[in-house]
Amino acid sequence: MAYFDAASAAPLHPVARQALLASLDEGWADPARLYREGRRARLLLDAAREAAAEAVGCRADELVFTPSGTRAVHSGVAGALAGRRRVGSHLIVSAVEHSSVLHAAEAHEAGGGTVTRVPVDRTGAVDPAAYARTLRGDTALACLQSANHEVGTEQPVAEVAGACREAGVPLLVDAAQSLAWGKVPGDWSLLAASAHKWGGPSGVGLLVVRKGVRFAPQGPGDERESGRAPGFENLPAIVAAAASLRAVRAEAEAEAVRLRELAERIRARVPALVPDVEVVGDPVRRLPGVVTFSCLYVDGETLLHELDRAGFSVSSGSSCTSSTLTPSHVLKAMGVLSEGNVRVSLPPGTPAEDVERFLEVLPGTVAAVREKLGAPAAAEAAPRTGGDLVVDAIGRRCPVPVIELAKVIGDVPVGGTVRVLSDDEAARLDIPAWCEMRGQEYVGEEEAEKGTAYLVRRIS
Amino acid sequence: MAYFDAASAAPLHPVARQALLASLDEGWADPARLYREGRRARLLLDAAREAAAEAVGCRADELVFTPSGTRAVHSGVAGALAGRRRVGSHLIVSAVEHSSVLHAAEAHEAGGGTVTRVPVDRTGAVDPAAYARTLRGDTALACLQSANHEVGTEQPVAEVAGACREAGVPLLVDAAQSLAWGKVPGDWSLLAASAHKWGGPSGVGLLVVRKGVRFAPQGPGDERESGRAPGFENLPAIVAAAASLRAVRAEAEAEAVRLRELAERIRARVPALVPDVEVVGDPVRRLPGVVTFSCLYVDGETLLHELDRAGFSVSSGSSCTSSTLTPSHVLKAMGVLSEGNVRVSLPPGTPAEDVERFLEVLPGTVAAVREKLGAPAAAEAAPRTGGDLVVDAIGRRCPVPVIELAKVIGDVPVGGTVRVLSDDEAARLDIPAWCEMRGQEYVGEEEAEKGTAYLVRRIS
Repeated sequence: MAYFDAASAAPLHPVARQALLASLDEGWADPARLYREGRRARLLLDAAREAAAEAVGCRADELVFTPSGTRAVHSGVAGALAGRRRVGSHLIVSAVEHSSVLHAAEAHEAGGGTVTRVPVDRTGAVDPAAYARTLRGDTALACLQSANHEVGTEQPVAEVAGACREAGVPLLVDAAQSLAWGKVPGDWSLLAASAHKWGGPSGVGLLVVRKGVRFAPQGPGDERESGRAPGFENLPAIVAAAASLRAVRAEAEAEAVRLRELAERIRARVPALVPDVEVVGDPVRRLPGVVTFSCLYVDGETLLHELDRAGFSVSSGSSCTSSTLTPSHVLKAMGVLSEGNVRVSLPPGTPAEDVERFLEVLPGTVAAVREKLGAPAAAEAAPRTGGDLVVDAIGRRCPVPVIELAKVIGDVPVGGTVRVLSDDEAARLDIPAWCEMRGQEYVGEEEAEKGTAYLVRRIS
Repeated sequence: MAYFDAASAAPLHPVARQALLASLDEGWADPARLYREGRRARLLLDAAREAAAEAVGCRADELVFTPSGTRAVHSGVAGALAGRRRVGSHLIVSAVEHSSVLHAAEAHEAGGGTVTRVPVDRTGAVDPAAYARTLRGDTALACLQSANHEVGTEQPVAEVAGACREAGVPLLVDAAQSLAWGKVPGDWSLLAASAHKWGGPSGVGLLVVRKGVRFAPQGPGDERESGRAPGFENLPAIVAAAASLRAVRAEAEAEAVRLRELAERIRARVPALVPDVEVVGDPVRRLPGVVTFSCLYVDGETLLHELDRAGFSVSSGSSCTSSTLTPSHVLKAMGVLSEGNVRVSLPPGTPAEDVERFLEVLPGTVAAVREKLGAPAAAEAAPRTGGDLVVDAIGRRCPVPVIELAKVIGDVPVGGTVRVLSDDEAARLDIPAWCEMRGQEYVGEEEAEKGTAYLVRRIS
């Protein structure tokens, strides 16, 4: 069994487990109480805050513990926006933020605020200059992740933080994916993170608000956690979170080198082993251990299922593995192929053998899924016939529309077109991505009687 | 060492500890994922939900896990109010709710809503008929705790739920203090509870919303927990919470009888052992294991400190143990003495010897605190002098104003008055309470040049 989904949740670090056990006995009482059990709990809480603040690179009184990274983001965004209400209600986010940031942005819009979503390039990164140009006089808050959770691309946080500082706008950094590996660079104002992403327990997030940042906590509050995170402190988990952050940091430098090598091996080998694959994300500025690729003509759900049967737990941004019917907003914003998408995120300690075994298993698994779906063979030479063609893929889900397109493209002459009718949202992303991979021309889409027509011109 | 503050947080139940340990290994993955670690986590989550729902007496799909009881209350109140926005924005709460409910009510008021706070009698209970009379055509939600957290008094939940049902208004029950002991009776609509109150871990609350109750979750959400509790599920703690609720319930009937006997012993013995004590709360309709009393002429902070030194961890609603400078809103609403307030809440399993030892230690501890403060001896016969008197206690904190009053009341003739000048908020509650305990007449208060003047007439 190999668990390759550390970007969702990392298995509990041994230090986290140990600290959790110890503090179950020492840290269950209310840290607000004056008797000895309460004082002991308070000491544990204070020590955990000091340790976490040191790892983040902030003052202890700037950091509060929240019930999750998501709650840290929600509270951070809401509090920072409210704190600068007089300035305006403009919020900036990148298009590839974690859903917690995007949900907070939607809630802000629903409440009458305005939101700018900064696009990303094909690697998934924002352009700092383009980001800076969205800063306005009425911008209350800007948000940027330290690194992307689906494709591993690092964002230019320090540059964006500099631009924000110059404009007098606070920058909130969602550091969920990167905090295990090091401090977030640059002059940011707020930071959110999540313990279960670094091998800490679930139930703990961090929210840091730098001194001097205007912040007005929203919703009912209480006296706990500086009024920024109401409810009884989840103390044993907080202690475990802080202890494990310190522990993973001690191992981070060496482990990052090792995981980078393993991930690089996957990045390099997968396109050689599996035909019709697009490896996505920045090749250099990226998280250690995260590799994402998409396989043409593959149903992501079936692929994940088959990989699971073969003993590999991975994740996917394909629409056919989610309940939403739309492909991951990250892949969409990058404009890359979403079908057959696989994210491998290696937890610290992953043995090299597991990665080798994955590379052995993957080609056969993808081939089997493709065969079942009747996908065209990679080098298939189809007989050429004359005229334009229409492929009716209405009612068929990803990856069928692309498979049907690939099957017939050889049937039209160079210069001829294929019109693919589809009502699957993934087609909007995957047909242009297929054209780019195949060197065909994507002409555009238009409304059809049923669904949408995607027009492709054969040019090779 | 005896920990007598179970109403704040109960020590972890052995079953909770065991379940937590087991699910640290089995339940750290994302239950939304399709691979085996995810499916295993999903099974644990589903089983925990079933177990908790059975203990509450609701359907599993009516119950979600929140990060704390406080968050359950905040989300429940906000969601229920928003769900019935068209009906109106009137909210009813009792005056003695937990601060989480009162904070939610304040937030509602700040947002333009109206709130009625239903008063309680001297035992701390609401009158169901009086509660029912506050129901209006524009009432969106009513809240009532199942039992009070400071004095242990059970509320007439079933009667109030009946009245609410008749009026078509949903009732939210804060069951934090009672869920360990049994299901909440009556036809309520929403329920909130907190695991660390029943011996479960911190970091877990319950929010139940009955089918058919209009509910619109507020703030940014996600797909987890039916959209009612965003953020990664705190799974090991959730499993431990459900397992321990089942375990404490299995022991509840026998343990309730035992704790009731111990608590009754304290209720009966304290007034006999310690002079000038008021035992508060309903003598019969009450939680097992909770006893609250107030000691005249005692500084609550010093008393708690001395009891802690003697090995007893108890809580207090006195202003002199809190940072707020006002006495507990519960004691205030009840109109009972707040000075020298002590809440004893026995955790399940408390040995009878610990209670005996507490009863041995208490009289000497109270006497020592009183002596240090120069309190009048219980049977002190002061020489009678003529005329009215003024006691200037400006700048002196609780319990000094009452001590000074008691010292001079014998100096005025029957029919004469003592005018106590005080700027301590606790005096407003404690001087009338002293008059009631001492059989003197409390005439009233009036504004003075500095602080407030409290007028007391000697009638015995």
